[in-house]
Amino acid sequence: MTKDLENIIKLVDKKVMAQLPREEGYPSKLVEAMNYAMQAGGKRIRPTLLYLSYKMMLEGGNEPNADTVDAKDVVEACDAFMAAIEMIHTHSLIHDDLPALDNDSLRRGKPTVHVAFNESTAILAGDALLNYAYETINQYICSVGEKKSEDRDNSDLLLSLIKASNELSQATGIHGMLGGQALDVELSGEPTTTEDRDYIYDHKTCALIKAPLKIGAYLAGCEGDIIDALGRVGYLVGMAFQVQDDILDVTSSAEKLGKEVNQDARNEKNTFVAEYGLERAKEYVRECSEEAIDIVRSKVPESKFRALMIELIEFLIVRDN
Amino acid sequence: MTKDLENIIKLVDKKVMAQLPREEGYPSKLVEAMNYAMQAGGKRIRPTLLYLSYKMMLEGGNEPNADTVDAKDVVEACDAFMAAIEMIHTHSLIHDDLPALDNDSLRRGKPTVHVAFNESTAILAGDALLNYAYETINQYICSVGEKKSEDRDNSDLLLSLIKASNELSQATGIHGMLGGQALDVELSGEPTTTEDRDYIYDHKTCALIKAPLKIGAYLAGCEGDIIDALGRVGYLVGMAFQVQDDILDVTSSAEKLGKEVNQDARNEKNTFVAEYGLERAKEYVRECSEEAIDIVRSKVPESKFRALMIELIEFLIVRDN
Repeated sequence: MTKDLENIIKLVDKKVMAQLPREEGYPSKLVEAMNYAMQAGGKRIRPTLLYLSYKMMLEGGNEPNADTVDAKDVVEACDAFMAAIEMIHTHSLIHDDLPALDNDSLRRGKPTVHVAFNESTAILAGDALLNYAYETINQYICSVGEKKSEDRDNSDLLLSLIKASNELSQATGIHGMLGGQALDVELSGEPTTTEDRDYIYDHKTCALIKAPLKIGAYLAGCEGDIIDALGRVGYLVGMAFQVQDDILDVTSSAEKLGKEVNQDARNEKNTFVAEYGLERAKEYVRECSEEAIDIVRSKVPESKFRALMIELIEFLIVRDN
Repeated sequence: MTKDLENIIKLVDKKVMAQLPREEGYPSKLVEAMNYAMQAGGKRIRPTLLYLSYKMMLEGGNEPNADTVDAKDVVEACDAFMAAIEMIHTHSLIHDDLPALDNDSLRRGKPTVHVAFNESTAILAGDALLNYAYETINQYICSVGEKKSEDRDNSDLLLSLIKASNELSQATGIHGMLGGQALDVELSGEPTTTEDRDYIYDHKTCALIKAPLKIGAYLAGCEGDIIDALGRVGYLVGMAFQVQDDILDVTSSAEKLGKEVNQDARNEKNTFVAEYGLERAKEYVRECSEEAIDIVRSKVPESKFRALMIELIEFLIVRDN
C-alpha cells in the first residue's frame, strides 16, 4: 500500500473515532462497549470508500458551487456519514457474533463484545451504534437546516444530505444488509442454492459497499447515471471482497485473520469457494475487481483521488486479513 | 373511554400498520417476525400521543400556511412518524424480552418473538424494525425534498421534518431510551439508588413519550417554549405510566396484563412501589397526571383534540393492563 493511501486510511480512522460518544456519566458501560467495538480497528474500508468517492467526484469537475454550498459544511457532512457507516457496520458485526447467530468469540484478534462484556450489553451496544449512526447524521442535517434562515441558500446541500441519509438507511435495512443477514441466518445449515447465495452476498456484503460510493458522490453534488455506475462498482467490489473472505476462511490462519477460520465449513455454508473451488473463486475476484476499475477509469476523470480509489480496490483483492 | 378516542386509536393503528413492509419475496421470515411483533397490538399510546399533539397544536391556531406547506404532505409526514415511533417502541420490546435481557416468554398475551420464531430472528427483527423506522421517515423526507424544485416552496415543512427526525433519533439513543435500558440491565439484581431509578424511568420510558408530543408539535409548525412545555407533559405522563406499570406488576394478573406479573420482585428491581409503597405510588401517578393536564389546559387552546389528549392522559392512570 502506498504511503498516500495509508495516510488517508489513518485520517479516515481519526475522523470516524472523533464522532463516537465519550464515556462520561450514564450510560457508561454501554458507551464503553460501543467504543470497544469501534476501537477494535478493522480496515475502515467503508468510510474510506466514501471519502475517496467524495474526493474523486469533487475533483471530477463537480466542485460544489461556492455560491450555494458552504465547503466546510460538506466536509463536516462527509465526516458524519463516514462515522455513521462504520457504526452501522460495527453494529452488524456485534450482533452477527452473538451466540444465537455466528457465536464467534474472536473478532479482529480481540474477544467479541459479548465475551468482553456480556450478551445483554452486546445486544444493546449494537442497537445503540445503529441508532447513533442516525443520531450523528440527523443532528448534522438539523444544524444545516437551521442555518438556512441566514443569508446563504444552502438548499442544494440540504437535499444532497437528505438523499445520502435515505441511501444509507435503505442500504442498511430489510432490502439491504439486514435482509441479507436474515436470509443467511435462516438458511444456516440448510443447502443453499446459487440464487440464495447471490442474494446473501449482494445484500449482506455489497449493500454497505455500494452505499458509501453513492453517498460520497451525493455529497459531491452528483446525480443521475454516475450514481448508478458507482453502485455497480460497489456491487463488484463487494462481491470480490466477500469471495475473498470465503477464500481466506479456507486458506488463512486465525492468527493472521484475527478471527476463527474454517467457520464456513463448520456452519455448512454453500460459499462461492465450496461451489466452484478455490481457483475459480480467485479468478472471479480478479474479474470483479477489473470490471470495477474499468468503470472507475471510464466514468471518473483522472485525479490523485481516482488513483487512490483504484489502489484501494486492488488492495481488497490481495489482502490476507 | 369515549367512542371518539376509541376511533382515533383505531385510526392510528390502521395508519401505523399500513406502513409495515409486506411479506413478499426475501427476506420473508424477517418481515413475518416484524409484522408478528407489530400485530401483537398494544395500546398504540406513542403514535396516538403524536397524532393528538399534532391535531391539537394545529387547532391551537398553528394551522400551517397553505401557501408554504402542502396540507396533504403534513398528514403523510404524521403517518410516517407515527409508524416510526411504534416500530422503535416494538424494537425495544423484542430485544428487552430476549433471554439475555428480561427473558420474558409472554408479551401482550402472545408468545414473545424469540419464542414464536427463534432468538436469532428476534435479534434481527428488532434491528430491522429500528432501522425501518428511519427508512420510513427518510424516504418520506426525501420525497418532500425532491418536490422542492417545483413551483411551491416547502422549505418550512422540510425543516419541521428534519427537526422531528432529529428529535426521534435522540430520544431513542444513548441519551434516551437505549441509555435507560442499558442502565436498567446493568444494575439488574443490584441495589438501585433513587437517582438511578429516576434516570432509568426518565430515559427508558419517558423519552419515547416526550418525543411524540414534541414531534406532533413540530409537524404542526410549532417552535420554542411550547415544545419544552410538551416535553414536560411527556415526562409527567411517562412517569405516571411507568409507576402505573410497577403498580400493575404487583396488583394485576398475567391473564389481565398479557405478560408475567411480579417480574420486578423476581428481578429484585427497586421500583417506585418497592421504595415508597403502593399508596404513595398511586398518589404519585395522580399528581403527575394532574400536573400534565394542567400544563395542557394552560398552554393549548381549547379544542376537540385537546379534550381527547386530556382523556388519553387520564386513561393512562386508570388502565388495568
